Amino acid sequence: MPGRVVHFYFDPISPYAWLASKELARIEAAGLAVECRPILFAALLNAHGQKGPAEIPAKRAYTFRDVLRLATQKGLKVEGPPTHPFNPLRALRVCIAVEGIRERQRFALALMDGAWAGGLDLTNTSVLAAIATNCGLDAATLLAQSELPDIKARLLEATQQAIQMGVFGVPSFVLDGQIYWGADRVDTLLWASQGHWIDESQLDLVLSRQASAQR
Amino acid sequence: MPGRVVHFYFDPISPYAWLASKELARIEAAGLAVECRPILFAALLNAHGQKGPAEIPAKRAYTFRDVLRLATQKGLKVEGPPTHPFNPLRALRVCIAVEGIRERQRFALALMDGAWAGGLDLTNTSVLAAIATNCGLDAATLLAQSELPDIKARLLEATQQAIQMGVFGVPSFVLDGQIYWGADRVDTLLWASQGHWIDESQLDLVLSRQASAQR
Repeated sequence: MPGRVVHFYFDPISPYAWLASKELARIEAAGLAVECRPILFAALLNAHGQKGPAEIPAKRAYTFRDVLRLATQKGLKVEGPPTHPFNPLRALRVCIAVEGIRERQRFALALMDGAWAGGLDLTNTSVLAAIATNCGLDAATLLAQSELPDIKARLLEATQQAIQMGVFGVPSFVLDGQIYWGADRVDTLLWASQGHWIDESQLDLVLSRQASAQR
Repeated sequence: MPGRVVHFYFDPISPYAWLASKELARIEAAGLAVECRPILFAALLNAHGQKGPAEIPAKRAYTFRDVLRLATQKGLKVEGPPTHPFNPLRALRVCIAVEGIRERQRFALALMDGAWAGGLDLTNTSVLAAIATNCGLDAATLLAQSELPDIKARLLEATQQAIQMGVFGVPSFVLDGQIYWGADRVDTLLWASQGHWIDESQLDLVLSRQASAQR
């Protein structure tokens, strides 16, 4: 089915989003188009009332070990950003200001590679400018646009739209209105894209069951 | 290396623990011994100050869809327990009362299959007795033992030991003191068991970086 689009929701703050970005070529090779949608991970956490992995000490330690393992298995080296968590707002705004699906994807991949493979500081305006320039984009215009209320609103709206759809983490892929959360769900996404499905009435039944215990 | 042991930390409340239980044979086929360690998932959540997937509406809906997808990919049907979350304490206590690594594993697998494939209510004493009997175990003795302070303490201690080791979720596999969290980390566990490793000094460096933003 040509023309089917996978939306890739990401925030460069997430090393798993970086790992997932390495799978986009495989998704495209399966005949799907990919559209990158920058969103603010912190807003997802706020909206759903949950903590991020970096906010739970044992999970933070585990997460980075897991990321290094997965990256090593893929032959990737993890440099990681100079600070973490960092404020990704400007990077996200510059990204959403990039017009053109291919251009935005190129910039999104360069952002994540910059931080996680390249050790770059995405809160630094000159770093963002250099990444944009390396992608063949007009850095000065994009940085100016990232300060405009319209672009700020565009990021907020994209994030709100993701939240309303039920996206609670990054990276998330969305195909045919269904969410696939995590760099490790690309196989499941491709499985579903090939016409496989689950028994929706059985899912409804399981979801309709009530709790008999709370913590 | 014969004699290497993977500890499989689980709570039958988790459908992912059930999916992971289907991977134990593959782990054993790779030359590793598996030891099942029942622990109380709710205590992990309390200790680490986090919410479980069933406590976040969008994540609950996603989780069961994800479980159905993964199960369908494996050719497994999900019936699911009659209530969820349920109180798994008695099931965990009966399980930890089973002496013998093979016997306990057989019972652990039957517990998880009972709830998730068979739709059984693990809070029901007669259900637990039937599962034990089907595993060739002395159900009456095990149920009586599950009420003893010694067995209750054994479950608490196992859970505390897991928490101290940094286990924050189930299922978790532990090999050589390292945690592999999730039914989807068996490949990484086997990769590591074959002598692959990560750059620990690079991990230390990444973990030593400071935050420059908080939510």
